[in-house]
Amino acid sequence: MNKSKSGARRTNSAKATLRKSPNGTRYSEAAACLAEIGKGFHARGWVLGTSGNFSAVISREPLRLAITSTGLDKGSLAPDQFLEMDEAANVVRGDGRPSAEALLHLAIVRGVDARAVLHTHSVWSTVLSGSHASQGGIALEGYEMLKGLEGVRTHKHREWLPILENSQDMLELGERVSKTLRESPGIHGFLLQEHGLYTWGGNLPEAKRHVEILEFLMEVLVRSGAAQSA
Amino acid sequence: MNKSKSGARRTNSAKATLRKSPNGTRYSEAAACLAEIGKGFHARGWVLGTSGNFSAVISREPLRLAITSTGLDKGSLAPDQFLEMDEAANVVRGDGRPSAEALLHLAIVRGVDARAVLHTHSVWSTVLSGSHASQGGIALEGYEMLKGLEGVRTHKHREWLPILENSQDMLELGERVSKTLRESPGIHGFLLQEHGLYTWGGNLPEAKRHVEILEFLMEVLVRSGAAQSA
Amino acid sequence: MNKSKSGARRTNSAKATLRKSPNGTRYSEAAACLAEIGKGFHARGWVLGTSGNFSAVISREPLRLAITSTGLDKGSLAPDQFLEMDEAANVVRGDGRPSAEALLHLAIVRGVDARAVLHTHSVWSTVLSGSHASQGGIALEGYEMLKGLEGVRTHKHREWLPILENSQDMLELGERVSKTLRESPGIHGFLLQEHGLYTWGGNLPEAKRHVEILEFLMEVLVRSGAAQSA
Amino acid sequence: MNKSKSGARRTNSAKATLRKSPNGTRYSEAAACLAEIGKGFHARGWVLGTSGNFSAVISREPLRLAITSTGLDKGSLAPDQFLEMDEAANVVRGDGRPSAEALLHLAIVRGVDARAVLHTHSVWSTVLSGSHASQGGIALEGYEMLKGLEGVRTHKHREWLPILENSQDMLELGERVSKTLRESPGIHGFLLQEHGLYTWGGNLPEAKRHVEILEFLMEVLVRSGAAQSA
Repeated sequence: MNKSKSGARRTNSAKATLRKSPNGTRYSEAAACLAEIGKGFHARGWVLGTSGNFSAVISREPLRLAITSTGLDKGSLAPDQFLEMDEAANVVRGDGRPSAEALLHLAIVRGVDARAVLHTHSVWSTVLSGSHASQGGIALEGYEMLKGLEGVRTHKHREWLPILENSQDMLELGERVSKTLRESPGIHGFLLQEHGLYTWGGNLPEAKRHVEILEFLMEVLVRSGAAQSA
Repeated sequence: MNKSKSGARRTNSAKATLRKSPNGTRYSEAAACLAEIGKGFHARGWVLGTSGNFSAVISREPLRLAITSTGLDKGSLAPDQFLEMDEAANVVRGDGRPSAEALLHLAIVRGVDARAVLHTHSVWSTVLSGSHASQGGIALEGYEMLKGLEGVRTHKHREWLPILENSQDMLELGERVSKTLRESPGIHGFLLQEHGLYTWGGNLPEAKRHVEILEFLMEVLVRSGAAQSA
Repeated sequence: MNKSKSGARRTNSAKATLRKSPNGTRYSEAAACLAEIGKGFHARGWVLGTSGNFSAVISREPLRLAITSTGLDKGSLAPDQFLEMDEAANVVRGDGRPSAEALLHLAIVRGVDARAVLHTHSVWSTVLSGSHASQGGIALEGYEMLKGLEGVRTHKHREWLPILENSQDMLELGERVSKTLRESPGIHGFLLQEHGLYTWGGNLPEAKRHVEILEFLMEVLVRSGAAQSA
Repeated sequence: MNKSKSGARRTNSAKATLRKSPNGTRYSEAAACLAEIGKGFHARGWVLGTSGNFSAVISREPLRLAITSTGLDKGSLAPDQFLEMDEAANVVRGDGRPSAEALLHLAIVRGVDARAVLHTHSVWSTVLSGSHASQGGIALEGYEMLKGLEGVRTHKHREWLPILENSQDMLELGERVSKTLRESPGIHGFLLQEHGLYTWGGNLPEAKRHVEILEFLMEVLVRSGAAQSA
């Protein structure tokens, strides 16, 4: 709905910018790829009700991200619903506001060498991040599926998935995210309590893979009765 | 099945009416959009077995709604399976009978300033509205997903989802719905016991978002064990 | 796989028969409609692993049914994978063998005035028909969804879903089915223990609706904890 | 992503090889069919996060298999992402490395007379292979669905699904697989602990059917509460 209207409003200026910008192609490709990923996640029920947001790094120097604008139905996500933002979360391409959680994306791409950040909001992560909040995180160990996380070579790996208290103050929450990334080197994601999963990767397929793996393992835990016995 | 037959039967008169009516375009757009939403809900298992019904306000003065006619398979819902009805539930456009629950749609668009009303009938709402009936409703609190409900700004919001006893007397039930809306200002939906969810919005995308959010949160509660411990 | 090969093998003779037969059109329409229904059920996981079978009455005098041939992957069900059989389960049109359970379809279309019989094999019916076997059946009461069953007018209706012991002797099982239909007039379906659901209708859309309703209600019972407390 | 690039890189040489090879047609058909099966499994959540691998025997003398190359997103699996390998797991057609688990596929096609081997990695098998590890396997008995397993004639059949300890040493694990196949003749599959299911068949449709049946039965067990009481 919004899509076609806002799309029409900015057609001329946006297209012109796209042609002139050196990042234009990378931006367009990232937006198209993120839109496909988002629609697939919506079909699985991982980003219902405009929840979830997705970004990809377009350039490192200066830092530029393609990121979903706020409040979109991910079931009909389109490339023109993305924005390009700079290192201070200013919009430099496209109309609309970036997600309120843009600061978390920036904290992550700075804190780890990520090129893509995906935030999902599934039933599984909502249940587990509530039931395990008092433990500060969830330990995942012994699962073959862990080998799909970048750098992991054996199912005997122990992955720690920290749970951070949720907040509406994104500056404060962004600082806690940065602190978590510094203090827990090697993690592949974290949960916000009763909110959802953040994970990332060196490229978009890797980040998508990490979503599938971590969502799978959380579903395994809930179905194994972990939510009840926490 | 019925679709093509009834569609054929009324092609000529209906199309003529459509062109002459000032509400024609709005009606056609609403019917097409509601049909898409309905098919999506059917795919998710939220409106199986001809359950569920959907409406959108076409005009306020006089009050006119596009609404699903009764007894349809939502998996093959088509725009020509909608009716236009007036403030007394009389059909003013299209063939067929409106849903028995048309009076509830009217009670809602009058009781709150809604432009769209969606009724789903999921496993989650059936389970929870049974297990929590004696408590008169369900409290939803602490979930980030709540922020997707119109006007909610923080996950600390406490949403009350009233449960009304089910009835086949729609006049009587419509009055209880109106009373609930007066006595619980600010709610975003309610449950009919072992029947399903009613929610609404200022426009169709907002109402669809509210369905996804409330269905999500009910699934979270059931999977957290709430149905067993109620 | 088999599909294209067997399809090719019988193209000429089958098509010729089709044109000459007075039931040809009805047979073709039923097969096409049943194939669509079957693929939809497979997508929902209700007829995995070649389980399930479907039939529709083509004529009453003499009795003729279109029925799935045996051992098919319902995910790629095609109209040419159906057979026409007579009142003694002899194939009168098409290649292949009818399902071993053809005798149950015949018992049902004779025992109740059904025009379509659908057999699904879901996780929900397998779980519940095991947990409730010692009780001889499952009582469904108080659910609005019951109103979708033909002839039911209120959620206060009490539907009895008998559970029959499973058997590989189809003559013997067919007799027990006939006996159940005589002794429990008004039922809309029954379960075979750890096997699945049989339901029917006065036409195909009605039978499909009954599948959706009964599968839905069994899922509700399992998720409400009924399987554990039985 | 990788797909189009690697596809482009080898177009000329691969196509030339294909035309000259006596196994070319069989290889192409197997790859296309396996790709379709894999995408369907991904949609059901059975091979998330690049998990799972699939093979088909192209010739027996000498032994040649079409097999997925390693690390693929099964949601976009394409025929050109398969390799042909010989009896020593050497790649004889196509670019890329075969899955680390290629040795298990070889152990299976040698140990039983299988023409296709499918490995899925579902939530259900992960949960059950963990909860039942100490029992060494899972007994499946009394289910009609068992009749879909090749050679099984009655629901009274007792199917033993062994659980093998997981390992990253494929030579060692391959020997344990061979030993299991020798010591448990007649089994239709086995589980690797907290890893997933291996099953097979005399052809691809049979192997696909075995996946659907065994995944179904594991889901039934988990939903019946078996994982909690193990």
